[in-house]
Amino acid sequence: MTLSLEGGVTAPQGFRAAGVHCGIKPASAGALDLALLAADGPVAAAAVFTTNRAVAAPVIVSREHLARSGGVAAAVVTNSGCANACTGAPGMDVARGMAEAAARALHCDPRHVLVASTGVIGVQLDLGKVRSGVDDAARRLSVEGWSAASRAIMTTDPFPKSCAISVKSSSGTITVGGMAKGSGMIEPRMATMLGYLTTDVIIEPDVLSKALRRVVDETFNAISVDGECSTNDCVFALASGRSDVTVTRDDDPAFLDALRAVAGHLSREIVRGGEGATKLVTVRIVGAASHADAWLAARTIANSPLVKTAIHGGDPNWGRLVAAAGRSGAAFVLDRASVSIGDIPLFARGVPHDDRARAAADVLKAREITVTVDLGTGGDQQATMWTCDFSAEYVKINAEYRT
Amino acid sequence: MTLSLEGGVTAPQGFRAAGVHCGIKPASAGALDLALLAADGPVAAAAVFTTNRAVAAPVIVSREHLARSGGVAAAVVTNSGCANACTGAPGMDVARGMAEAAARALHCDPRHVLVASTGVIGVQLDLGKVRSGVDDAARRLSVEGWSAASRAIMTTDPFPKSCAISVKSSSGTITVGGMAKGSGMIEPRMATMLGYLTTDVIIEPDVLSKALRRVVDETFNAISVDGECSTNDCVFALASGRSDVTVTRDDDPAFLDALRAVAGHLSREIVRGGEGATKLVTVRIVGAASHADAWLAARTIANSPLVKTAIHGGDPNWGRLVAAAGRSGAAFVLDRASVSIGDIPLFARGVPHDDRARAAADVLKAREITVTVDLGTGGDQQATMWTCDFSAEYVKINAEYRT
Repeated sequence: MTLSLEGGVTAPQGFRAAGVHCGIKPASAGALDLALLAADGPVAAAAVFTTNRAVAAPVIVSREHLARSGGVAAAVVTNSGCANACTGAPGMDVARGMAEAAARALHCDPRHVLVASTGVIGVQLDLGKVRSGVDDAARRLSVEGWSAASRAIMTTDPFPKSCAISVKSSSGTITVGGMAKGSGMIEPRMATMLGYLTTDVIIEPDVLSKALRRVVDETFNAISVDGECSTNDCVFALASGRSDVTVTRDDDPAFLDALRAVAGHLSREIVRGGEGATKLVTVRIVGAASHADAWLAARTIANSPLVKTAIHGGDPNWGRLVAAAGRSGAAFVLDRASVSIGDIPLFARGVPHDDRARAAADVLKAREITVTVDLGTGGDQQATMWTCDFSAEYVKINAEYRT
Repeated sequence: MTLSLEGGVTAPQGFRAAGVHCGIKPASAGALDLALLAADGPVAAAAVFTTNRAVAAPVIVSREHLARSGGVAAAVVTNSGCANACTGAPGMDVARGMAEAAARALHCDPRHVLVASTGVIGVQLDLGKVRSGVDDAARRLSVEGWSAASRAIMTTDPFPKSCAISVKSSSGTITVGGMAKGSGMIEPRMATMLGYLTTDVIIEPDVLSKALRRVVDETFNAISVDGECSTNDCVFALASGRSDVTVTRDDDPAFLDALRAVAGHLSREIVRGGEGATKLVTVRIVGAASHADAWLAARTIANSPLVKTAIHGGDPNWGRLVAAAGRSGAAFVLDRASVSIGDIPLFARGVPHDDRARAAADVLKAREITVTVDLGTGGDQQATMWTCDFSAEYVKINAEYRT
């Protein structure tokens, strides 16, 4: 089972994609700003949406369409450069208009079109531009279009994110592809960015939905760039049914493994490409008294500015990890707690080992780092999250985003 | 009722203070690193301690001493440059040794000495240095010592923080003084830094304790620099009883007003002096469905990296305020929500007013800014927090703290 960085969302049979420039982003940038992902016809579809209560118009429309169609979709149309969030009734009309434009171009029911937007909040999205972009994209749909589509969904992302995998199951080979965009407002309390997963398995919408939810919790929901959760975040999954493999259970191991491999890779790529990020940090919590405590501690550490700046500076300041775990709300027993950076225990069952700081500083020079915190409760619950370091560049990007 | 920036903790009668250098901080820095605050004898005392479960040795000792003495103390000894946190049994011995040294020097019961430490976590504190510092400080105790004491508790603080106030009540004049240190690890879920309040009222320890708790919730617990809560945070209050005024109730208006004025000023000074801070931001939440919701939304906004970087950059990006309120978990009705920067409504009952962005950008040029978010629920609950902007300088300070 090897992940391929080629193919992306069109790797599974039955999907085409395109990415075009239609003028939502400034013409001078010449950047792609509209992506269309299309199945050959209506197929099983599922999604996980933002938990933010300030929910953007496209999220409302996609949620509505999936509910009305009973989990069937033929296309996902996405624009970047404008979030269509906090745009009131006019924004809702634009989001519906986006779906209608794609339905006309693809000769399908508007309810079978899902929509997504990403970019600045509070600015009206120009439906005229979206329509011309959709028409253009529909003409350009191709199996090769995965790459342009993955670039058209980017905002401040430093690089596009796509991958695909094929795995053999007892009844045949299944393929899962995907693409994602991330950068800022990345936080684990839901989907937290835009993610697109495609597959060729034969599956009922409700089974797909449950499988997606399982995988999202361990992947897209297990990452953090800055603890922010956007108004627009979605992960979509579409299954073309073009392989010979039928998935009847949401815990099907081969299908879950393939989904997890693609979603996990994309999630880590989002962190790696986080605003200002220079390091990918795996936060492992062990010895937690409960599942919830393990996640609470992992999330607090993954979002701690002091932990993230220390890692940025290559400072093996394990005290900040202890302080973050201690304030997380998770049960924590200081005298039995331990902290390792890489394989180096700097604090072991309540005892500091600062003689190892130099070796730990060497570990922190790498671009990928694992920190492990044992909460010392004697419990066997664990959690793993991915986060990035916190750099002056993050501040620079976000202090200058609009002005 | 005018706040004075002179006098600090020794403004109320019955207190003396000193700040000395005893070698905990590098000699080259020449910085003061030990502060002693002494009453003329055992007096009513109270404290609020960190809620962090990774609690430092001095916090354990101070909590123990206050419990055993029934709320009586004669002195508080504080060192900076070493937190004496995560230092195990040896660290506990040092914290007790600190109290014993002060008790010997001041001829009082060790249980009547409270201790505090601030600085790097996980490094053993040198008791020999502490002892010589305590002896030196005891010799130098004076009414003028408030200023040196306020400098001796600093770590990365850019300036010392002291103030005092005298107010007339029906039975006489009461005075409250205070000092504090802040900078990093400032978060509202408890005391969040070191704070010292002194007063000359006659008051029972349990009444003092309740009054302190009330005031801390609206002041030291209503500020945030980076959402971090330290292992060492404490706010102490000592009442000398040297005025003619007896306070018998924890809701005594004159006493609470004076305490609140001093604690509020010190809290805002901590934010103003936060690591890398260039602006003091007041976050006002209105229209919340519940008290808890109002605080949840205020805290989420006050800790949002995207909000804080936008303010740093002078970008009136109200969408980030909406997104932070929306993800806070508080009840939030987007269509009826509003956001103002200063007096300028940029988002009013669900409608954006981006034509006002230029005026709002002007407001953001000031060093003190108020942002107001109406959660749109129609509820009448409110909360006010103070935070700072998020600068590249914060990252620089915290990436380089130890190395």
